[in-house]
Amino acid sequence: MKVKSYAAYSPTSLLEPYEFERREAKADDVVIQIHFCGICHSDIHTARGDWGPVNHPCVPGHEIVGQVIGVGKKVKKFKVGDQVGVGCMVDSCGKCENCKANEEQYCTKGAVYTYQSNEYDGKSYTKGGYATHIVVKDKFVLKVKKGLPLDRVAPLLCAGITTYSPLKRYGVKKGSKVGVIGLGGLGHMAIKLAKAMGAEVTVFSTSPDKEADAKKLGAKNFIFTKEPKNFRALAKKLDLIIDTASAAHDYAPYLNTLKIGGTHVLIGVPATPTEFRGGPLIQGRRVLTGTLIGGIKETQKMLDFCAEKKIFADIELIKAKQINEAYDRTVKGDVKYRFVIDAKTF
Amino acid sequence: MKVKSYAAYSPTSLLEPYEFERREAKADDVVIQIHFCGICHSDIHTARGDWGPVNHPCVPGHEIVGQVIGVGKKVKKFKVGDQVGVGCMVDSCGKCENCKANEEQYCTKGAVYTYQSNEYDGKSYTKGGYATHIVVKDKFVLKVKKGLPLDRVAPLLCAGITTYSPLKRYGVKKGSKVGVIGLGGLGHMAIKLAKAMGAEVTVFSTSPDKEADAKKLGAKNFIFTKEPKNFRALAKKLDLIIDTASAAHDYAPYLNTLKIGGTHVLIGVPATPTEFRGGPLIQGRRVLTGTLIGGIKETQKMLDFCAEKKIFADIELIKAKQINEAYDRTVKGDVKYRFVIDAKTF
Repeated sequence: MKVKSYAAYSPTSLLEPYEFERREAKADDVVIQIHFCGICHSDIHTARGDWGPVNHPCVPGHEIVGQVIGVGKKVKKFKVGDQVGVGCMVDSCGKCENCKANEEQYCTKGAVYTYQSNEYDGKSYTKGGYATHIVVKDKFVLKVKKGLPLDRVAPLLCAGITTYSPLKRYGVKKGSKVGVIGLGGLGHMAIKLAKAMGAEVTVFSTSPDKEADAKKLGAKNFIFTKEPKNFRALAKKLDLIIDTASAAHDYAPYLNTLKIGGTHVLIGVPATPTEFRGGPLIQGRRVLTGTLIGGIKETQKMLDFCAEKKIFADIELIKAKQINEAYDRTVKGDVKYRFVIDAKTF
Repeated sequence: MKVKSYAAYSPTSLLEPYEFERREAKADDVVIQIHFCGICHSDIHTARGDWGPVNHPCVPGHEIVGQVIGVGKKVKKFKVGDQVGVGCMVDSCGKCENCKANEEQYCTKGAVYTYQSNEYDGKSYTKGGYATHIVVKDKFVLKVKKGLPLDRVAPLLCAGITTYSPLKRYGVKKGSKVGVIGLGGLGHMAIKLAKAMGAEVTVFSTSPDKEADAKKLGAKNFIFTKEPKNFRALAKKLDLIIDTASAAHDYAPYLNTLKIGGTHVLIGVPATPTEFRGGPLIQGRRVLTGTLIGGIKETQKMLDFCAEKKIFADIELIKAKQINEAYDRTVKGDVKYRFVIDAKTF
């Protein structure tokens, strides 16, 4: 089927209207009319070639919600009219130990990402959600409950699962003390989710003017990080840190706020390396780790949790023609906290 | 009581004979005649002031085995004639959450280390095991079974527990795949212990001539690390890495040998920082962590495990007057794998 989209024709060009053919639905495919698609910082890095060369035209977008308008003949889980979501992945081998453990994002053959990934057919590469429609294998389609603000649900498919997964993995519960580094798209979801799980949240930020917003989102404490003494009162207090900062930073002052055995989870991927010393890990048996989105089963759990707790992203809804301006503002951090594209405007 | 020892009188001086008074036994103290004391690299760093200024005269030594020659009136656990060990700690607050969790090494008030640590009396600082006798609170004295080669048991009190603790914590069992970085005092214990727990061990080393010894100690595989291509065959294969290297090194090639969720444990403390990128942690949900010796209860378990499995350090037994030469050789890595001082020679 022919779909309308926005695409980057080269790493240096603006995104422009682009029409292309989506594949015909195979037996296990779901055909989705997209309603909304969030703008993730990864979209920008990919379209601009920051993470290496990509195929062009490049159609980004992996925070997708919409409605089923057709299903392949073997599809049982979805029917026309269902509300659905698609996140960062659209396929994986399904047979390796990680796929079997419901962690398709770590598929040993390589997960097929929603855009700019080679398909298992060996011919095509994926095009994402800045489009009117998408065709996705049923296993990678998520159910979205009725009655939710769909535009605000879209960012859950990446920013939501990426922060939910480590909060769950490291056992956040009532009374947990959780730090969140950086207050952007990921950070604001981390605050909301940790708070909903019962945690006391401390936000670390380089911008003192974000304190009021952090507290409005649910944080109890706010640390302005450019003043080293601000870290002192927190020494050995936190159970978990969710680190969403995308600029290189020294991990030591943060690690020292963790209790013995506490965990610092990297989500942001700084472009430059940081100087690292093992002392705070050894002295407190602390853990530095990372996390990559979450598996499909866990993504469904996250969507259900958010529906139950009424957790949605704070967004700015835009038209397709505003994408380039939104990119520039996202890079500057000038968005509260996610741009979401109205797919009617493609 | 008056004891003979060897001490450094300044950071730049050689170790020389030194006589001093040990405290009289308090009600909960055990008086120990030292038979053997291992030389740990930490002794050298401390005596030479590498880790900051220290009190002098400095009597190092925290790999101590000997025999009980007296006990305070409240001591129930030990009697004259018992064989015992003393490791890196001789006291802690006993009341904080970490002490209560049998992790005295992370005591929030600060554990009292066996040498160069301030005692809780507020007056004295500790002097270690390069001496004829030591007086230690009963809770910090370990039982050593009869019939073992005591000189080869001594290094278990630091090198043994430091490697045993993470191997146990991260669940090494039959079939586990364990990497060991560096083949020195810690590394050779890590190989023996991991092998005894049923693991398949891979040794990473910058010295190709260590391959034969690594295999004799129980390693199945040996990787010469200066050749980057040697890492390739190991991609995503290991469950756990015990990193004993004391020179700064890039963690990335090692992290990439870990399975999804695998753990890289730092034990060595390089003096210089290393350049670090979060990619391998994020891409494989891998863990970089550290560990500091082990608690007293766990140290007893380790000693019992080693007695049962007949695991002892490979050592070179020396006289007190050879300590300075042994220090120079330890710094050069010229020892297989631990110097142990015969305490009769003080």
